[in-house]
Amino acid sequence: MPITAIFSTLARRRHPFYSGPAHNNTIQRHINLPSGWTCPPLYDSALFLLPPPPPSIALVNENVVGKITVGRYLLDRLVQLGVTKVFGVPGDFNLGFLDIVEDHESLHWVGNCNELNAAYAADGYARVHTKSVGALVTTFGVGELSAINGIAGAFSENVPIVHIAGVPNTTQLKNKPMLHHTLGDGRFDAYEKAAAQFSIAQAHLLNKSTAAEEIDDLLVKCVTTGRPVYLTLPTDLSFAKIPAVKRLQTPLALETPLNDPEVEKVVVREIIKEIHDADKDAVILVDACAIRHHVVDETAELIKRTGFPVYSAPMGKTAVSETNDRYGGLYVGSLTHEEIRDKVEKAKLIISIGSLKSDFNSGNFTYSVPATNTVELHSTYTQIGYARYPGIGMKRLLPVLTEELAHMKTTAEKIPVARYVPVIPNDGSQVIAQDWFWPRMGKFFRSKDVIVAETGTSSFGILDVPFPDGAIFVSQILWGSIGWTVGSTLGAAMAARDLGLGRTILFVGDGSLQLTVQEISSMIRWGLKPIIFVLNNNGYTIERHLHGWDRKYNDIANWDYTALLSVFQGKPASERTGKTYTVSTRDELSALIDKPEFAAANEIQLVEVMMDKYDAPLALRKQAELSGKTNKYAE
Amino acid sequence: MPITAIFSTLARRRHPFYSGPAHNNTIQRHINLPSGWTCPPLYDSALFLLPPPPPSIALVNENVVGKITVGRYLLDRLVQLGVTKVFGVPGDFNLGFLDIVEDHESLHWVGNCNELNAAYAADGYARVHTKSVGALVTTFGVGELSAINGIAGAFSENVPIVHIAGVPNTTQLKNKPMLHHTLGDGRFDAYEKAAAQFSIAQAHLLNKSTAAEEIDDLLVKCVTTGRPVYLTLPTDLSFAKIPAVKRLQTPLALETPLNDPEVEKVVVREIIKEIHDADKDAVILVDACAIRHHVVDETAELIKRTGFPVYSAPMGKTAVSETNDRYGGLYVGSLTHEEIRDKVEKAKLIISIGSLKSDFNSGNFTYSVPATNTVELHSTYTQIGYARYPGIGMKRLLPVLTEELAHMKTTAEKIPVARYVPVIPNDGSQVIAQDWFWPRMGKFFRSKDVIVAETGTSSFGILDVPFPDGAIFVSQILWGSIGWTVGSTLGAAMAARDLGLGRTILFVGDGSLQLTVQEISSMIRWGLKPIIFVLNNNGYTIERHLHGWDRKYNDIANWDYTALLSVFQGKPASERTGKTYTVSTRDELSALIDKPEFAAANEIQLVEVMMDKYDAPLALRKQAELSGKTNKYAE
Repeated sequence: MPITAIFSTLARRRHPFYSGPAHNNTIQRHINLPSGWTCPPLYDSALFLLPPPPPSIALVNENVVGKITVGRYLLDRLVQLGVTKVFGVPGDFNLGFLDIVEDHESLHWVGNCNELNAAYAADGYARVHTKSVGALVTTFGVGELSAINGIAGAFSENVPIVHIAGVPNTTQLKNKPMLHHTLGDGRFDAYEKAAAQFSIAQAHLLNKSTAAEEIDDLLVKCVTTGRPVYLTLPTDLSFAKIPAVKRLQTPLALETPLNDPEVEKVVVREIIKEIHDADKDAVILVDACAIRHHVVDETAELIKRTGFPVYSAPMGKTAVSETNDRYGGLYVGSLTHEEIRDKVEKAKLIISIGSLKSDFNSGNFTYSVPATNTVELHSTYTQIGYARYPGIGMKRLLPVLTEELAHMKTTAEKIPVARYVPVIPNDGSQVIAQDWFWPRMGKFFRSKDVIVAETGTSSFGILDVPFPDGAIFVSQILWGSIGWTVGSTLGAAMAARDLGLGRTILFVGDGSLQLTVQEISSMIRWGLKPIIFVLNNNGYTIERHLHGWDRKYNDIANWDYTALLSVFQGKPASERTGKTYTVSTRDELSALIDKPEFAAANEIQLVEVMMDKYDAPLALRKQAELSGKTNKYAE
Repeated sequence: MPITAIFSTLARRRHPFYSGPAHNNTIQRHINLPSGWTCPPLYDSALFLLPPPPPSIALVNENVVGKITVGRYLLDRLVQLGVTKVFGVPGDFNLGFLDIVEDHESLHWVGNCNELNAAYAADGYARVHTKSVGALVTTFGVGELSAINGIAGAFSENVPIVHIAGVPNTTQLKNKPMLHHTLGDGRFDAYEKAAAQFSIAQAHLLNKSTAAEEIDDLLVKCVTTGRPVYLTLPTDLSFAKIPAVKRLQTPLALETPLNDPEVEKVVVREIIKEIHDADKDAVILVDACAIRHHVVDETAELIKRTGFPVYSAPMGKTAVSETNDRYGGLYVGSLTHEEIRDKVEKAKLIISIGSLKSDFNSGNFTYSVPATNTVELHSTYTQIGYARYPGIGMKRLLPVLTEELAHMKTTAEKIPVARYVPVIPNDGSQVIAQDWFWPRMGKFFRSKDVIVAETGTSSFGILDVPFPDGAIFVSQILWGSIGWTVGSTLGAAMAARDLGLGRTILFVGDGSLQLTVQEISSMIRWGLKPIIFVLNNNGYTIERHLHGWDRKYNDIANWDYTALLSVFQGKPASERTGKTYTVSTRDELSALIDKPEFAAANEIQLVEVMMDKYDAPLALRKQAELSGKTNKYAE
């Protein structure tokens, strides 16, 4: 059912219902919407399309005069945000709410093996379904605390997750009996206090009359800040009925606020002045928050219309298409390849978009760019040299800047762009060395693949590999919690399937896999078909490079990794899905990945890649050297 | 090397170096100590035996005039507390400290698959090695937060764990750079704040000059309160040298403080009066804190010398030998078997020792005993009717009480004791029903077995099964975090091996196993030989009984459980250890457990027990009915 919607620069590259040119100014566009979906007139983005009112709402409407349960209200709001999957583990304080989830016609309950994995999955889902949020349901105490590291990682890396903890009923919350899952000392607020450290906002529903408002407020904060929020839902309240059917028809106010026009004018003028002072010798550097705070399209537009060269920090990888001819590769401070480093550090001005200068994202803080030569655009402020302009966010600033800088294109596009092309070493060896493996894998990737790399040799090794247009890089470079990718891949693959993207490909070391291995079972259970490369290098290789080269604590038990897919399927071998392989030589690996049946990814596949215990990508070796100096282990 | 040590009633039933009668008054006893061990003259308990000074201390002593690293100091103190194993996962902020752990001649580093499992293992270790503590090492942020649910469970259930989080160096802690594993917003205290919710004391080492004192203070709090403590250890500080070799020779002051003699006298008089008022018709009820706060021996002495009948709450199971002829079985409020309930609730006075009245431990708060008929002995106070006597702890009170009540023995031992003997149903069925399984397993248990039961059908089903003398029951009835037993079994089995106890036997449902399954790999890696019964009943059966009988969210993926032992061993099948079995009928199960080779437990064994999806032990069915009333899921 084609309708006409108004798209601003928000036109989403990956919106499920949008087809047509990716980057445009505000124009009218035809989009194909499934029957019943509507685009509210006040909204100019496909993001805020409304789904058809679910049949059960209509039913409720008729039967109880516009009343709806609090649980259903929450879920309908999540559906409006684009949520299709709810992750988590059942527990007796959330079972009633899960009835409502299971019965919701637009949602799919994804039971996970444990809560940490569920949080990782919600995180991976939100990273790929970039303009939606992750949804996680856990139970009081035991469940929510198991998930807390996953939530903290999402906080750290600016990923929006709505964490719903099922808690005792409102009477119990008042009387505080010594229930199971309590600390036994009457403190019922300990979990909330812990959760508050790792969420941008919290709501503790206690009263049905304010529930809808509290939910709306919380969800708005989640989306607009791009951070996790935490909601406690008492068992009785999820089923309490509220007259909120009408309220649901008013979309949440998720628009990025306008910048103060006076201040914005000054900022634009100052930035133009900086560029002129730099003789227009400027480069753009994109980073994590360009993705997280949804300015990927605005950035693409800026590059297209101004022609300035663009580079990326590791966490910004794939924010800009790596096939764009103005894209020059990765900048990681002193870890950068010489040809790229030269171009970035010798530019007279750097315009950074969404920067996040963590140690592993900046070559251990070795940016060699003076602050006076930098303009930083952030989601909530702009920094020009040493001057900070609070409240001037990049979402609104970027389109203005693009207009104002477009006339510089003829000059800007003459600035030469580095082009680092990793070479596949051809030294006659059959050892699957890190320096061979990653460029070789680059040949395997396709447009729209979702490529997930675990912290360690994978996250460092993959950085230099150029990705095809539309491929998505998923990694956790700031938080760096090993094991994260296994849960995250589950969520990422689900989002990819929903959005019609390509294959989901995971690179994970043996040590990291062991933390969260059971979530492979969920991938099989829910019919996903990722390709999982297990880098078997006998332990925590990243740590060997950081400290303890030959220490026993960096060893792990070796597993029969190729048996994993079958162990997670309790049915006759003939009915099982999935294929597994072990490759020990370059020829074996090449032959495998070149096979069309393999590349087609029609079922889940696991490839054990035998690698040397001590081998690490160059970037990791350099990083380890720098970290080693700070983390010296002697007086 | 036999020495003479003075034992009070503390004489430990399970002390590794003690042999002889278990329960005595203060007398001199010969114990066999390994060479070099000493018993400091001021201590009257085998608990505080000192190990020989480790050779490397002597070395440090000679070479650097009594200096020792902070890390080594901490570890030597742990060794003095009886610690033999350190659990955890390496991470770059703890690697330096792990060098010191790995090099310590009295400690064994147990690398776990993930931090939650490691915390569970430390908990299981501390529960079996009752007078030692669990030791856990994690890394900054990602590691410590993954462990937090395990620590919270230990807090809730009064289990002492020393949680050591490796954190950035002291300069970084001051300057707060955007390191990996940080929240990206400069907050370096968020993890501490979360940890403070679940630990009884915290220490943040920043200065070597106060480090030894801070460590001592923290460890004393851990031991004396029986709760987890949290220590942050900066990378540089673990290697900082301090002149503390001499300090190590002064044992930590771990003695339970004396009660105020005046108040204690009043309390004893009041208790005697209560007993007289009750015509000496009193029963003793033991609970969790009798075990956790180390009054098992004092309790045994009280029973032996006074002859009062004794019953146990679920969490107190095995605090009193179940073969004691004054032991009458389990009291669980309205869930109690009629014959036992009668005896307990009709007694005119209940003397409870270490009670912990949580919902699952008390039949959902259905104790039918008026407060005026109750004397409660706790670790830090005594309660007589409605009167509370703070500071009068049971450790010191019990021996006095025993002396004062001993003369009542002739009357007390005439009070009849219930004796509930579970019957193995002989109904001709071959279905492995819950009501058949548990009494049948009772026949399999032996003296000194360590028996671990997961929350769910296992923890409820096993309650009625009488345990042989010296068998130890390990369960997490208050905290109830599913998956806990798998990690816990690892720690429990290690402690059992160190203390020369019997077999370690785990009962875990399929749903719970999936949360933490990888820790079976660690059991194999470290040469443990538990018997693991996996109750395959197709999902979360306990939850089906609580809510969602046929809901999909209570389903899980079925696995090939019998392949688990081999998947965790990456070596040729012929070199693998372990045996696995599936039993689907009563005859199969009986035949298996009656086999001497099986019962000998000479290698790790896993038995998949096929059970009905909806079948649950009677106690769980009753509990679910009571919980269902409180947790109603409708307005």
